[in-house]
Amino acid sequence: MTLSLNQWTTRRWSVAEAVDGCVRHGLEAVGLWREKVAEQGLAESVKLVREAGLRVSSLCRGGFLTAGGLPGEEGRRAFAQALDENRRAVDEAAELSAACLVMVVGGLPGVKPGEPLPASGFSRDVAGARERVAEALAELAPYAGERGVKLALEPLHPIYCPDRAVLSTLGQALDLSLAYPEEQVGVVVDTFHVWWDPRVFEDIARAGRRIASYQVCDYLHPLPQDILLGRGMMGDGVIDFRPITRAVLEAGYAGDVEVEIFNADIWAADPDEVVATMKARYEDVVLLP
Amino acid sequence: MTLSLNQWTTRRWSVAEAVDGCVRHGLEAVGLWREKVAEQGLAESVKLVREAGLRVSSLCRGGFLTAGGLPGEEGRRAFAQALDENRRAVDEAAELSAACLVMVVGGLPGVKPGEPLPASGFSRDVAGARERVAEALAELAPYAGERGVKLALEPLHPIYCPDRAVLSTLGQALDLSLAYPEEQVGVVVDTFHVWWDPRVFEDIARAGRRIASYQVCDYLHPLPQDILLGRGMMGDGVIDFRPITRAVLEAGYAGDVEVEIFNADIWAADPDEVVATMKARYEDVVLLP
Repeated sequence: MTLSLNQWTTRRWSVAEAVDGCVRHGLEAVGLWREKVAEQGLAESVKLVREAGLRVSSLCRGGFLTAGGLPGEEGRRAFAQALDENRRAVDEAAELSAACLVMVVGGLPGVKPGEPLPASGFSRDVAGARERVAEALAELAPYAGERGVKLALEPLHPIYCPDRAVLSTLGQALDLSLAYPEEQVGVVVDTFHVWWDPRVFEDIARAGRRIASYQVCDYLHPLPQDILLGRGMMGDGVIDFRPITRAVLEAGYAGDVEVEIFNADIWAADPDEVVATMKARYEDVVLLP
Repeated sequence: MTLSLNQWTTRRWSVAEAVDGCVRHGLEAVGLWREKVAEQGLAESVKLVREAGLRVSSLCRGGFLTAGGLPGEEGRRAFAQALDENRRAVDEAAELSAACLVMVVGGLPGVKPGEPLPASGFSRDVAGARERVAEALAELAPYAGERGVKLALEPLHPIYCPDRAVLSTLGQALDLSLAYPEEQVGVVVDTFHVWWDPRVFEDIARAGRRIASYQVCDYLHPLPQDILLGRGMMGDGVIDFRPITRAVLEAGYAGDVEVEIFNADIWAADPDEVVATMKARYEDVVLLP
């Protein structure tokens, strides 16, 4: 396993700057975000990572597939729009030869990420939202497969169930993936999201080669007011990383290990220092001795 | 199923005031807290609920059993102290003829509830902490059984795993309970903690008569900065209650339904108005039509 910089960790960096940073720090892979790729230009981004000899360990992100759970025409239109947007994300992942397209599947229909509950016009039907995800996957998995792209279903910590992902456990994501070939649909193991799960070791073993991405960052305690920013540098929170690393390795995962940190202090820091700290902490607490 | 007021919902009320309030609003049961019982006096509390003809639907709470995961003498002493404290809680539940003693099992060893991570002297070994809970239960279940008290293991939302409960899912709590007779150890189904769980309906059915308590309140979104206070009045958050109520009924639960809300606004409101709203919302969104 080798270390990869997810570019959101050094959020101020453009694709060009992140690519340079990876080269400067001796990293072999980078995880890219669609917004940043769009700013740089897709063709230019492809050229930059190829010329630098970097692997693209993931493209973040597709998903947000649940709005089809809204009633009537609104739901039908939202579902069709989500499929279109995800096909574009698949196309971009193919261009970038990304190891996977990370899928954050969306929360309750009508609840927007990071926004308060609307007064009306949202759905509390979490089981139904999960069915919408399965329906969307049936459309998107073959499309991705034809383009050589693997969809990586990311279960998110249950705290994000209302607004970001109704996939809440690794076991649930894995069960959903099993209807498709391994090359088309896999799962993400992100330490922040799964560390608390009493079934995580059993489900990592069960996932085996379905593990499409291993992402690491710590779980801060207490969480900051904006819970999206509760991801910390490895060693700063409550996670015991090595048992999870060992389980992922034993399951047969041989891809890159992405560090993806959403954290106001880390975003405010010098990105080169962040990468240096990330490398040191990776050795200290994530890698097996 | 009949409605019960967990007295923390009307936190300003003493045991005497909560008992009066229940009678005034036509409720047949009350859930009590040890701190409030201690303030009122145990014998006096017993007298008050008996004279009012109320059932005590639960006593909150025992638990905090994981500090034994700290190394050496500190761990051994903490474990012994936790057992002593829990035996006292069992004794009180027996005196009150409480339907169960709710057990919040504790978080990572050395992490205090609601406090930041200490700089050192805590353990990240969540699997080990879960073993400590099982060891403590082996001591406490027979003790409770001899006194006619049922320990009700409460899985808490994973957001509370660092500092309050390493029991994070209903399935996990249920598996732990199965080593003991049904009269000694059951589980709590609290909507706030389990609504997101993709296995919750399967595990409620599997729990059957092991369900010792059904607690309801809503899950607010976004959560307030103090995440402990993210519990809302039913209807104010994201939970679809009726499917859970139906599953609990179909599992064979015939006890009281406790409303337990930790919420700054509700605590600041007139307790009588809170109880009136609670009754109305219970009919509107929790009870089956």
